[in-house]
Amino acid sequence: MSGYHPTIPQARQPGDGDVPLPAHSANYTPLSPLSFIARSAEVYPDQLSVIHGDLKYTWSESYQRCQSGAARLAALGISTGDVVAVIAPNIPALFELHFSVPMTGAILNAINTRLEAATITHILEHGGAKVLFVDKDSTAVVTDAIKTMSEPPLLISIDDGEATGDAISAIEYESFIDASYLRDELPAIDANWKWSLPEDEWQSISLNYTSGTTGKPKGVVYHHRGATMNALSNITGWHMGPHPVYLWTLPMFHCNGWCFPWSLAANAGTSVCTRTITAEAIYHNIEAHGVTHFCGAPIILNFIVNADKSIVKPLPHTVNIMTAAAPPPASVLLAIEALGFHITHTYGLTETYGPAVMCAWKPEWDALDDTERAKLKSRQGVRYQVLDQLDVLDPETLAPVARDGKTIGEIMFKGNIVMRGYYRNAQANEDAFRGGWFHSGDLAVMDPDGYVRIMDRSKDIIISGGENISSIEIEDALYAHPSVLEAAVAAKADEKWGETPCAFVALKNGESASEQELIDWCREKLAHFKCPKTIVFRELPKTSTGKIQKFKLREWAKEV
Amino acid sequence: MSGYHPTIPQARQPGDGDVPLPAHSANYTPLSPLSFIARSAEVYPDQLSVIHGDLKYTWSESYQRCQSGAARLAALGISTGDVVAVIAPNIPALFELHFSVPMTGAILNAINTRLEAATITHILEHGGAKVLFVDKDSTAVVTDAIKTMSEPPLLISIDDGEATGDAISAIEYESFIDASYLRDELPAIDANWKWSLPEDEWQSISLNYTSGTTGKPKGVVYHHRGATMNALSNITGWHMGPHPVYLWTLPMFHCNGWCFPWSLAANAGTSVCTRTITAEAIYHNIEAHGVTHFCGAPIILNFIVNADKSIVKPLPHTVNIMTAAAPPPASVLLAIEALGFHITHTYGLTETYGPAVMCAWKPEWDALDDTERAKLKSRQGVRYQVLDQLDVLDPETLAPVARDGKTIGEIMFKGNIVMRGYYRNAQANEDAFRGGWFHSGDLAVMDPDGYVRIMDRSKDIIISGGENISSIEIEDALYAHPSVLEAAVAAKADEKWGETPCAFVALKNGESASEQELIDWCREKLAHFKCPKTIVFRELPKTSTGKIQKFKLREWAKEV
Repeated sequence: MSGYHPTIPQARQPGDGDVPLPAHSANYTPLSPLSFIARSAEVYPDQLSVIHGDLKYTWSESYQRCQSGAARLAALGISTGDVVAVIAPNIPALFELHFSVPMTGAILNAINTRLEAATITHILEHGGAKVLFVDKDSTAVVTDAIKTMSEPPLLISIDDGEATGDAISAIEYESFIDASYLRDELPAIDANWKWSLPEDEWQSISLNYTSGTTGKPKGVVYHHRGATMNALSNITGWHMGPHPVYLWTLPMFHCNGWCFPWSLAANAGTSVCTRTITAEAIYHNIEAHGVTHFCGAPIILNFIVNADKSIVKPLPHTVNIMTAAAPPPASVLLAIEALGFHITHTYGLTETYGPAVMCAWKPEWDALDDTERAKLKSRQGVRYQVLDQLDVLDPETLAPVARDGKTIGEIMFKGNIVMRGYYRNAQANEDAFRGGWFHSGDLAVMDPDGYVRIMDRSKDIIISGGENISSIEIEDALYAHPSVLEAAVAAKADEKWGETPCAFVALKNGESASEQELIDWCREKLAHFKCPKTIVFRELPKTSTGKIQKFKLREWAKEV
Repeated sequence: MSGYHPTIPQARQPGDGDVPLPAHSANYTPLSPLSFIARSAEVYPDQLSVIHGDLKYTWSESYQRCQSGAARLAALGISTGDVVAVIAPNIPALFELHFSVPMTGAILNAINTRLEAATITHILEHGGAKVLFVDKDSTAVVTDAIKTMSEPPLLISIDDGEATGDAISAIEYESFIDASYLRDELPAIDANWKWSLPEDEWQSISLNYTSGTTGKPKGVVYHHRGATMNALSNITGWHMGPHPVYLWTLPMFHCNGWCFPWSLAANAGTSVCTRTITAEAIYHNIEAHGVTHFCGAPIILNFIVNADKSIVKPLPHTVNIMTAAAPPPASVLLAIEALGFHITHTYGLTETYGPAVMCAWKPEWDALDDTERAKLKSRQGVRYQVLDQLDVLDPETLAPVARDGKTIGEIMFKGNIVMRGYYRNAQANEDAFRGGWFHSGDLAVMDPDGYVRIMDRSKDIIISGGENISSIEIEDALYAHPSVLEAAVAAKADEKWGETPCAFVALKNGESASEQELIDWCREKLAHFKCPKTIVFRELPKTSTGKIQKFKLREWAKEV
């Protein structure tokens, strides 16, 4: 007992000279990815921004084209809060609209090119797009989609020279963004018009309809703040260097290409556009343009792993692939890394700006054997640097599940890269944000090291004799079989067990395997109650983004 | 004229189902670097966070220590808006206070260890610190500084085992953060206390007094938002990979170590602490700990370039150095890159969270010859990815100067990494933010490619016969002379010309050069009116951060 008692000068307050130190134009700017394109045009005017076939643009050219497109939209009266839609594959116009539309304050609604007309009608009516840019290959379906609309959007055709369909409109995108194009079809561009950052970084930047394996698609709204933070986190998380050469295998209409148009603007990278997504195209672009990075669903990995030997070439440098959408089977991970690709496994949803979780790799894992490494890497992982919280919670009580790698709960998110909300859908917002968390609908366990491992979508879990069975676990076992190209498992109603697993399998070209052989294979690897009771050999139904359409499998399973 | 007139459905509005999509706990989190340490502790608990001599901490340990320190501060009544000061070199306690103090909501005031007592008194009185942590080597000066204070802060001693001074207080830092330390000297830590993020990301996180070459130091206030954005921009701009090993050559009390404590938390890097900043210590730490990155004023580069041959070792990998504070002379850049170091040149002020401008390197410059590359790299460059605007403006009209590499104006900033403002100094804020820009006081030209090149501090420019002469240009010429170790130039009053340049030069050990020889050397390289009329050989006076104290040179120049 020293007798010393601390005294803190509690009374000390800032004196009369204090000022409130408010925000003002010198020290506050709304966060927006539009700042990134302005900077790259300023700092790297001659660096390549876009390659599309023989076409090349620099960052100063891209910026000029985006500003010009924005000015024309503004001349048409498009401004803050309006929705501008586009339906196109990964071509330069779609990339540019990621900047030109928000430059006017409007909201970009990029629509999946593989949707059927009725869904496109729903999206256009629900989103209320005022302008719709249409790639020529989508003319037929859009013509069909707008037939029943009393007030269809203004249509602009996009003709990149590679599409074969008719133009949907007399106005073509290149004329649209050309200030010297002066016809009475279009209001002239005001040479004095200048874009500006949103006044509020919470302003909406895009509207993405979930690809929705069931039900009507919901419109997910992103804001400038979230797009900025995810664009930066893509760079820091994936450790992208300066000027990456990024191949657009992932559709830009899918979560705004996981925010990579904006990441590439931040890092002055090059977007290599392509309509053709095959192993051959991937190897060609690596060779021709020095591609360093690309993203894609596991179907892309499958393309590469199962490519004809004549296509495969030694890589001139490590090519980084970010994959997500479904847990890549360990066998596929191993095979693709053996070819010299480096895989980063991420996870996210449309509602989280695309990737918001990543299987952050630890140096000490390098020393593990192949199988162990692949097993670790097939986990979804940990939160992005800018995601505030990721947890696996009991969906009812919202209490965290035990970190035991066994207890199943629902993956939930909190943070700046969670969507602003669903557009015009109060009920869906209430459900999704119940209890102050975003509910993903994905079921997972939390491993003892804090890495999340998805077991299933809520609706994909198979409950057999009271036991939860992960369809993914069975799929992993099937993928490991040398003859299996693709596998997916759904619940089949069963009088005795409630449900049993029914597997749908596509075999590799020239390979064969019997139902019993595959069931026996699974029984060697899995608890017997988890093994499929039925195996159906057939091609698997997929969404345009390569996700297997489990709802179709569930329907088929009923009929088996 | 096609007769086609576009119609846009102007009347279309979001329907009744719309919701305002407000911010709430699932989709909004205040930006704060405290999120980074929480994540690194969660994701990389066993990764090394801190090395100090034989001492090593992991991220989970560092996080635990910071939380414990914060809990003790909270037990003392420290909370939002309070100032907590520290005076220490680059030791673990100073690193930890960068997290523990803001965890309580309070503001960290890290004080330069080399200041004289009177200035420390001023800082403590002006900032109003309630608690002051004191490294044992600073006991004497702090004892002196608080002598005249009617209500000094609560003093806590820091003893890392390497300092030689007495303890200033019976309470030592390790006891302070140890929850099991229960004496009546200190209120007990409440085991249920938990830190939380600030409610508002605009909340102050730190208070840094400018090292001030003249006048009373001003207190620069940073907020959580700016610290977060600069921490990320350090990573994306410098292209730091995962787990960098960072050597603390740059004082953490200088602009919070340019925000690197927070960058390292974001990237789960390792802080190698050291009190000794010599070439020998740098080479030792590279070898012993695999240092990959460090920062420092050009004086650090000088240490390395002029190191004794016996110290220099081949580097095991590229070691990245970020330098700033003064434009590094081309000769120094060349010499250090020849040793295998990679230099990134940045620029900023205390008011811009440290570096906010960088000489972004372009791939095409790699092919240029050494001298040309060094010349390009000695420029200050372009804005950081998260800085909204950087420009060189006429200080009166605020019009941008011509981008001709010749017209001198003042460097000004806008954006999220401009300080909140000066603490309790309304007049200084009014001056610094006049016209909606932050006025740096640094004079520069804008090169045609948009890169800023500093010519001088406003007060360092020499006006001779009506011509502006950049002292830096003369210094560059002098540095290129093989015998010159350091050079600095100040204005000397002159009846005929108004001012003339007076050079102060320190020669390398064992080298010699006469005044006339150096003047002739300059005349070969510079316009004659720019050459020094007088040369004084002597050691140069420096601030603790390695900046040459030009105000002293100006005084001396009067007496020459």
